[in-house]
Amino acid sequence: MSVVRTHMSVTLDGYVAGPNQSLDKPFGDGAEHLNDWMFALRTAREMFGEEGGETGASDDVFRERLQNIGSVVMGRNMFGGGPGPWGAEQWKGWWGDNPPYHVPVFVLTHYARAPQPMEGGTTFYFVTDGIESAMRQAKAAAGDRDVVVGGGANVIQQALRAGLVEELELHLVPMLLGDGERLLDKLGDTAPSFEPIRAVVGTGVTHLKYRVRK
Amino acid sequence: MSVVRTHMSVTLDGYVAGPNQSLDKPFGDGAEHLNDWMFALRTAREMFGEEGGETGASDDVFRERLQNIGSVVMGRNMFGGGPGPWGAEQWKGWWGDNPPYHVPVFVLTHYARAPQPMEGGTTFYFVTDGIESAMRQAKAAAGDRDVVVGGGANVIQQALRAGLVEELELHLVPMLLGDGERLLDKLGDTAPSFEPIRAVVGTGVTHLKYRVRK
Repeated sequence: MSVVRTHMSVTLDGYVAGPNQSLDKPFGDGAEHLNDWMFALRTAREMFGEEGGETGASDDVFRERLQNIGSVVMGRNMFGGGPGPWGAEQWKGWWGDNPPYHVPVFVLTHYARAPQPMEGGTTFYFVTDGIESAMRQAKAAAGDRDVVVGGGANVIQQALRAGLVEELELHLVPMLLGDGERLLDKLGDTAPSFEPIRAVVGTGVTHLKYRVRK
Repeated sequence: MSVVRTHMSVTLDGYVAGPNQSLDKPFGDGAEHLNDWMFALRTAREMFGEEGGETGASDDVFRERLQNIGSVVMGRNMFGGGPGPWGAEQWKGWWGDNPPYHVPVFVLTHYARAPQPMEGGTTFYFVTDGIESAMRQAKAAAGDRDVVVGGGANVIQQALRAGLVEELELHLVPMLLGDGERLLDKLGDTAPSFEPIRAVVGTGVTHLKYRVRK
């Protein structure tokens, strides 16, 4: 069954990035280690062609997260490439010639551009008419598999406001930032309800899964 | 073994109270239901002389939380009684003649006052020389049992900054407030480190326990 899901590493005080984010420093000040728990895992190391890494509860959660993905939706900043209108039309994302997605990826942007096929099954499609359109296209592309809203926070907030997310997983990292960008913010009266369905303690991270309803 | 521990209900966006807190509305706007998960439990209902209530994971966590307590430290607002030099010297807290503590309770305040013995073993002591003194007195009173920093957020922050908390339990309630008082805030460079040691999913709440180190 197809589920629309999203996930993000969040500090214990609710931040997904520190202050002063930029293209050079996408996680802002102080948040450089927010995803260290992930890069330490065997499954993540395998994705980058490296050996070793941690097995156990967090690796199980992360491996599950990678399964059954049919398409991905992401924001302009997560795709990267400098400010608009595609100063570098040849920009193909941060991930090299063979991105780790291997499925259609819908990039929400204000600047139209032809689809960008990559090696390994990833194609970047550029959607200029909003989150609902991007999600509709991603669902069609995913078929029976899941749609992942990959981030950043702004796109996840758009999808939450539109009532289009069914499952949220927070990887709660016990560090404090005190300032920066928050995930569960700017939702106003359109905030959905969250029902906790799973909590797993890993090494230096807790994985919290919620069912999300309009 | 004696442990210094604290616990608090926290919204998914990190608030322990809404905006506009007052003596009449100690949880501020919008947070009236923050502790509903607790009042629904069999163990909580028993404390108030009521029958019935929910059993299961959350009730187990809450019952454990109540065990082995030797003393409590709380702030002036949690004890209540109005502003100033004890306009009402006879104020004896929110809890009636027989408060649900049954141990020495150390109230951090700027206004000296004689100890207030209550029915059922609770005595309120008023500490005017700061968090370290309150914690020292509470530890001495607790002996081999635990010291609980009961709240509010301000007192917990003082204890965290002073490196005096060993265990933190967050009862993470999946509601959003968007504004209000945050628990893990105002810690600055004195923030301790948190190691996740347990996560339990209850009904409409997730219980997260952390070991805290200076």
